[in-house]
Amino acid sequence: MAPVKVFGSAAFTNVARVLVCLEEVGADYEVVDIDFLAKEHKKPEHLAGNPFGEIPAFQDGDLVLFESRAIAKYVLRKHRTDEVDMLRESNPEEAATVDVWAEVEAHQYSKAVAPIVYECIVYPTAYGIPTNQKVVDESVEKLKKVLEVYEGRLSKQEYLAGSFISVADLNHFPFTLRFMETAYASVFDSFPSVKAWWEKLMLRPSMKKVSADMQRKV
Amino acid sequence: MAPVKVFGSAAFTNVARVLVCLEEVGADYEVVDIDFLAKEHKKPEHLAGNPFGEIPAFQDGDLVLFESRAIAKYVLRKHRTDEVDMLRESNPEEAATVDVWAEVEAHQYSKAVAPIVYECIVYPTAYGIPTNQKVVDESVEKLKKVLEVYEGRLSKQEYLAGSFISVADLNHFPFTLRFMETAYASVFDSFPSVKAWWEKLMLRPSMKKVSADMQRKV
Repeated sequence: MAPVKVFGSAAFTNVARVLVCLEEVGADYEVVDIDFLAKEHKKPEHLAGNPFGEIPAFQDGDLVLFESRAIAKYVLRKHRTDEVDMLRESNPEEAATVDVWAEVEAHQYSKAVAPIVYECIVYPTAYGIPTNQKVVDESVEKLKKVLEVYEGRLSKQEYLAGSFISVADLNHFPFTLRFMETAYASVFDSFPSVKAWWEKLMLRPSMKKVSADMQRKV
Repeated sequence: MAPVKVFGSAAFTNVARVLVCLEEVGADYEVVDIDFLAKEHKKPEHLAGNPFGEIPAFQDGDLVLFESRAIAKYVLRKHRTDEVDMLRESNPEEAATVDVWAEVEAHQYSKAVAPIVYECIVYPTAYGIPTNQKVVDESVEKLKKVLEVYEGRLSKQEYLAGSFISVADLNHFPFTLRFMETAYASVFDSFPSVKAWWEKLMLRPSMKKVSADMQRKV
């Protein structure tokens, strides 16, 4: 069977989010580079897969998907086994708790972390746009408040949704990895349970593999 | 059995998102008002349910949830029948498409619509803060681009994820209802399939009921 295709390189956080899931389940996949600076993501071929002209798009046979968090769930649902069950959809309470913390990643955590990553790494490196320090400072304050809640939770349990790893944990990978490359990485030092959770995640072969790919493609 | 509890009144868009789902499945529920201006959402009792101090929180027996889109899915999953199946989790392709368009609602549509609703209604009415016209104008332009994609899709199929209604459609309800109260409602006139989709949604008893509740509680 032809491997699934991911359109967009590992350097992009939203692509890396999908790749980690593919690695977790051991799926066969092919990465098709999209030249962002040449605006390939705005060309008709890419718009057919992602009508908003963003990265990534994803193809599995006739099925074409976009939005990294939706693709992540598709991959994890398709390859679910009793051992690797990252959505927990057969247990309504667990599934709901996974959903809650997946929403928290998108609407609380990444809203604080992403602007720091964009201002400190993406804008200066890729576009030569200087860092807006006011945005960074406000985001760091927001992030500390979010991490306080995480610390409360992770000091009592191993992963965000419970004693099991889930898509809610995995989804944190790409922005956290990039954040750790900024001058603000030490913010995590004040939240020992969060730091331990992150360090444990980073021991996973999936995250090691995709981290290496992310570095190569910057 | 005790009804489930929703903490936060129908006037709040994120509460209304949950209530529409409860109405769709005919669940028995109780709304527990949270006095936002008295900052009840920052008090320990509410923080126990929603650690980020936001609205809503939700309780079903021992299970306590937050994040409206996660609660919506829990409600729809719990009450799924062959007739009312808004997540389509038994069909991986349909489930993935529902997830894609649920993500689009959160990350494309609401990112454009919410600032218009906040600037034109919430800030002036609830806080006496004048409208920031620059934010509104930029958001209206963003919204038009999003609606172009929606028009392309909804001119070919009845609902966002396919020929069936899903949580992806339902989630659009609260911000669109409020947007239609602003001076920019006529933006929808340029997108006839989107407008027809919205008008069809608004015929649903769930949306009629919650619309009325939203008006009463402003």
